[in-house]
Amino acid sequence: MSSGKTRDWRAERSAAKRAAIIEGAMACFLRTGYAGTSVDEIAATAGVSKQTVYQHFGGKERLFTEIAMETIDDVGRPFFERLAALDPGDDPKAFLCALARALATIANERRLIDLRRLVIAEALRFPQLARAFAERAPGRTIEALAETFARLDRDGVLRIPDPYVAGEQFNWLVLAVPVNRAMFDPGLRFTEAELERHADEAVRVFLAAYPAR
Amino acid sequence: MSSGKTRDWRAERSAAKRAAIIEGAMACFLRTGYAGTSVDEIAATAGVSKQTVYQHFGGKERLFTEIAMETIDDVGRPFFERLAALDPGDDPKAFLCALARALATIANERRLIDLRRLVIAEALRFPQLARAFAERAPGRTIEALAETFARLDRDGVLRIPDPYVAGEQFNWLVLAVPVNRAMFDPGLRFTEAELERHADEAVRVFLAAYPAR
Repeated sequence: MSSGKTRDWRAERSAAKRAAIIEGAMACFLRTGYAGTSVDEIAATAGVSKQTVYQHFGGKERLFTEIAMETIDDVGRPFFERLAALDPGDDPKAFLCALARALATIANERRLIDLRRLVIAEALRFPQLARAFAERAPGRTIEALAETFARLDRDGVLRIPDPYVAGEQFNWLVLAVPVNRAMFDPGLRFTEAELERHADEAVRVFLAAYPAR
Repeated sequence: MSSGKTRDWRAERSAAKRAAIIEGAMACFLRTGYAGTSVDEIAATAGVSKQTVYQHFGGKERLFTEIAMETIDDVGRPFFERLAALDPGDDPKAFLCALARALATIANERRLIDLRRLVIAEALRFPQLARAFAERAPGRTIEALAETFARLDRDGVLRIPDPYVAGEQFNWLVLAVPVNRAMFDPGLRFTEAELERHADEAVRVFLAAYPAR
């Protein structure tokens, strides 16, 4: 039992250090950009040794990539949960509005928006990083929407001949306006009412183009 | 007559220097970012004196802003010309397809896409620059679309209760997919056929949401 407690304590300390590194790294990246940040600075900001940063993440590129992927996954969770809860018997308009509203909240996720800005900034110098980011966000969202739309078409709910194109359209009808504004205006926050109105209007346009059968 | 020729020659030399500064500055900005570029480097790259850079542009911020605004205006010209040529008697679908196709070509304008990436990169440190950029692109495009849609609504061609929202939707139905991809994939080029298909599909969705009366 005492060795079990030691392991718990070690795991907790390791998790706390990992969290400190992530927080410190994010602060450094935002202050001086990805290219301008060194592992030394990250270690100093996080209050750990450089060796500890390497033990946890291997290096700067993997650290940044893990931060980006974890953030995308955290931020996207409500949307994917909503999508998984799809009941074919649901009214398509109510379902799509709930989905669009869950998606729209992403525009207020400061951490993801800041990361997106950083990745775009470094796309010329670090194309793999940019590609990995884009494949996850919006890539995975669009793929998940496409699967859902293929199912709605198959089940005879909506007529959607090209589910992937429809997925892109849905994603950007909801996100293009607020995400674009946030890219150029870092302090911007949308009210819940603004995002809901915008999401509902996106669904109105989408359902006009892909009417219920 | 000889003094007129001297003036011509001076004006030509001045214009050539201005063009060299713009080209040199753009190369520096792309290589090291806006914040990482000094007027010294720009002058050296352009093959002019630092004094000449200041004479022409006042400083780095005005130089960057002028480059951005000139590029936006150059790139947007075909779209605005198409818009100005609107004839209320035109078939709305044909007119909107021509407009969407003119707008879509912007996604292949490497210079504008690179500038957009730079401005987003610096949005935290230089918010005025970012705001000025966004107000011009996509701001002016959306405003011009809104005016056109208000007119189409007034003339009874299409029913568009909120022309500004419709302007945003049209702009992003055409540009969100290709511009987002280009942000994360700097080498990406779209074929003319890809952009035309995408533009036509944007118009299909738009006209479903705002049908002809």
